[in-house]
Amino acid sequence: MKAAGKLSGFPEFLPAERHVELAVLDHLRRVFELHGFANIETRAVEPLETLLRKGEIDKEVYAVRRLHADESETAQLALHFDLTVPFARYVVENAGHLQFPFRRYQIQKVWRGERPQAGRFREFTQADIDIVGDGSLPFHFDVEVARVMAEALAGLPIPGLSMTLQVSNRKVLEGFYLGLGIAEPTAVMQVIDKLDKLPADAIAELLAEQGLSDEQAQACLALAEIRTTDTSFVERVRALGVEHPMLEEGLAELESVIAGCATVEGVTVTADLRIARGLDYYTGTVFETRVAEHPQLGSICSGGRYDQLASDGKRTYPGVGLSIGVSRLLSTLTTSGVTATRPVPSAVLVAVNDEESRAQSDAVAQRLRARGIACEVAPAAQKFGKQIRFAERRGIPFVWFVTEDGDQVKDIRSGDQVTADPDVWTPPETDLRPQVTQKETPA
Amino acid sequence: MKAAGKLSGFPEFLPAERHVELAVLDHLRRVFELHGFANIETRAVEPLETLLRKGEIDKEVYAVRRLHADESETAQLALHFDLTVPFARYVVENAGHLQFPFRRYQIQKVWRGERPQAGRFREFTQADIDIVGDGSLPFHFDVEVARVMAEALAGLPIPGLSMTLQVSNRKVLEGFYLGLGIAEPTAVMQVIDKLDKLPADAIAELLAEQGLSDEQAQACLALAEIRTTDTSFVERVRALGVEHPMLEEGLAELESVIAGCATVEGVTVTADLRIARGLDYYTGTVFETRVAEHPQLGSICSGGRYDQLASDGKRTYPGVGLSIGVSRLLSTLTTSGVTATRPVPSAVLVAVNDEESRAQSDAVAQRLRARGIACEVAPAAQKFGKQIRFAERRGIPFVWFVTEDGDQVKDIRSGDQVTADPDVWTPPETDLRPQVTQKETPA
Repeated sequence: MKAAGKLSGFPEFLPAERHVELAVLDHLRRVFELHGFANIETRAVEPLETLLRKGEIDKEVYAVRRLHADESETAQLALHFDLTVPFARYVVENAGHLQFPFRRYQIQKVWRGERPQAGRFREFTQADIDIVGDGSLPFHFDVEVARVMAEALAGLPIPGLSMTLQVSNRKVLEGFYLGLGIAEPTAVMQVIDKLDKLPADAIAELLAEQGLSDEQAQACLALAEIRTTDTSFVERVRALGVEHPMLEEGLAELESVIAGCATVEGVTVTADLRIARGLDYYTGTVFETRVAEHPQLGSICSGGRYDQLASDGKRTYPGVGLSIGVSRLLSTLTTSGVTATRPVPSAVLVAVNDEESRAQSDAVAQRLRARGIACEVAPAAQKFGKQIRFAERRGIPFVWFVTEDGDQVKDIRSGDQVTADPDVWTPPETDLRPQVTQKETPA
Repeated sequence: MKAAGKLSGFPEFLPAERHVELAVLDHLRRVFELHGFANIETRAVEPLETLLRKGEIDKEVYAVRRLHADESETAQLALHFDLTVPFARYVVENAGHLQFPFRRYQIQKVWRGERPQAGRFREFTQADIDIVGDGSLPFHFDVEVARVMAEALAGLPIPGLSMTLQVSNRKVLEGFYLGLGIAEPTAVMQVIDKLDKLPADAIAELLAEQGLSDEQAQACLALAEIRTTDTSFVERVRALGVEHPMLEEGLAELESVIAGCATVEGVTVTADLRIARGLDYYTGTVFETRVAEHPQLGSICSGGRYDQLASDGKRTYPGVGLSIGVSRLLSTLTTSGVTATRPVPSAVLVAVNDEESRAQSDAVAQRLRARGIACEVAPAAQKFGKQIRFAERRGIPFVWFVTEDGDQVKDIRSGDQVTADPDVWTPPETDLRPQVTQKETPA
């Protein structure tokens, strides 16, 4: 088959970068499972109408259809564009078999027909955690998911990322707007959500179009400017002199999250009242995450509380969760020089003396593998210099020589060669598996 | 959102069964990496024409298109139906960055619009290994992939599977047919490939339709009956009195594979000359794998040698590999009662005395996690009996009580309760993580 050429928006990694991705996914899995999250996967497709019901996304959906579908196949399917909608469907479908509060993590590809650009792909991997309750879900889970995700982000095996988890609360914003006498707080929130993309005076104009007075608009912008790494944001909001019961409730909730994250290390957690999240299904806590070194990526981890994550008409399932844009995060690899120390798992290349004795080399390899040491046997019984160069080209650090009077293993970086027993010898821990490393400092 | 209902052919697991799937995938990954196979993933979509070039599959392909595609988006895309076609494209596309022989494993979902039936899905997971050379690939890699896959299958963490890896060689069949004076050996091979589904006399009729004499047809059927667990098949073929250079070459190759697998344990390896593999791109060794307890599944692991896995017109890349039908294998879980000891990762539930002291319980949980013990904190400060029942319903074996004068941990199965320090106490190894188990013996 001939090469088909790359497809824009559908990135593929070479083995070394894929190793970094696997290291990231393994780390996330470990943290999520330590916190009691069970893994699930959902099918890649959903009925189109399920996806479109979430609105605003229809232009981005990939429809799926058998090339020679029968007349009878009327169900229109499409690829899922996130993991939240399928999860909500899964919860309702399997509610009788799940124990609530149900905590799950899910790491899968999703597809969106977006215009490809920096960090935006048409196929990409998301890693989600959510906790969902049956009927109700105590607020302390908002604090917990924030802490779990902060721990997960802080421990990512990628050097050179300074991350800030920005927390806000829709009740603070909505309560504040209601306290200002604004009739349609949701519309205002959607305008404020654009503060990232538009300057403050353009936002003020949009707010005026919503019928806000100059004073109201200035108060909204003043609220959006509040950003603290501790709970002092509460006083700063109060200083704006607006009062509303919903505002009070939101401030107490946001204070709990920020106070609950005080012990988090490695990630900065801030209360940031500019964060509104445009989507209308969030009902309280909302999260976004910025990487200081890569502002162009936007948020690499977002989420929040939905009082109605899912419903079957009779029962309602509130949830709170966060989603990491793994592919977006990994899109930085290409410029940062972060890669693996070698593109193959093998720590050892077992040399072959001649094709007749290949079985002996195979046997040595098998004994090393029995003790967890990844290795491969040389593809051809060439001169040893050529076999060593074969290992060198793949970054395999050790070459093993099978000899009559005791085997030898050579560290081809230092040239050190020692007598070794395949049932005893072990490479240094850092050579056992490929490690994530940074080739050069980015400019 | 309301429940959308299940889609036939798109299976989804509950968390306990998903744990079994993860255990299977972890095991496969470990074996493949120990043998030096690097992981890659390819995008889910390929240009439709790339997929259709492989022929015979067009009815099964799922076409993919943005719901509101621009006029300009003429490239027709479809979901991949296997991992071989995308891998071949990847090899050609990235040849300059890969070291040959390139050994990779790939574990991903694939999609086919087949009619759903036992073990046949529209979305399913495959786990592939392949070794691909640049220009040439020594035959000993055929032996190696057979051994790696046999080791992978033998170690699967699923009880109650008796597997037979059936090996054949297209050169044996084609050489034999040519030696018989048959003009179109490929057509005969495709008929013989149906021996699974049709009785011998129906096959004989089909062979007659191909213009074979009764004697030729009987010789073909006699060859197909040869099946040995050692290399004695060579003599039995020779006893049929047919001679051809290609037959000799094939017998020598197949003998190498069977002899090379003599040390394999846990999986039966047989030379089985009924195995032909219908697809026309195989050129030598071919593999299929049956599970004695589940004959209706057909082959759960198939593959072989392609002398032209990929080509860019100038360079040719021969390959040899095998593909496990993971979903097909796991479809047996529903009837075999194989599941996980619990549906959650948590080994410990940390009880909460009252909501005011939740932070203390959180701190204990964090100390346990720091030593790799998965745990969760009780969702509500209910009576301890209720908290214990909460753990019981999820199969969490231990409940931790935070008290003024030293913490206590209770094994809720035995009722044993001991004083414990969260920086020291460790659950038994078998309780640390969920284990794969069999609930009841299948009928």
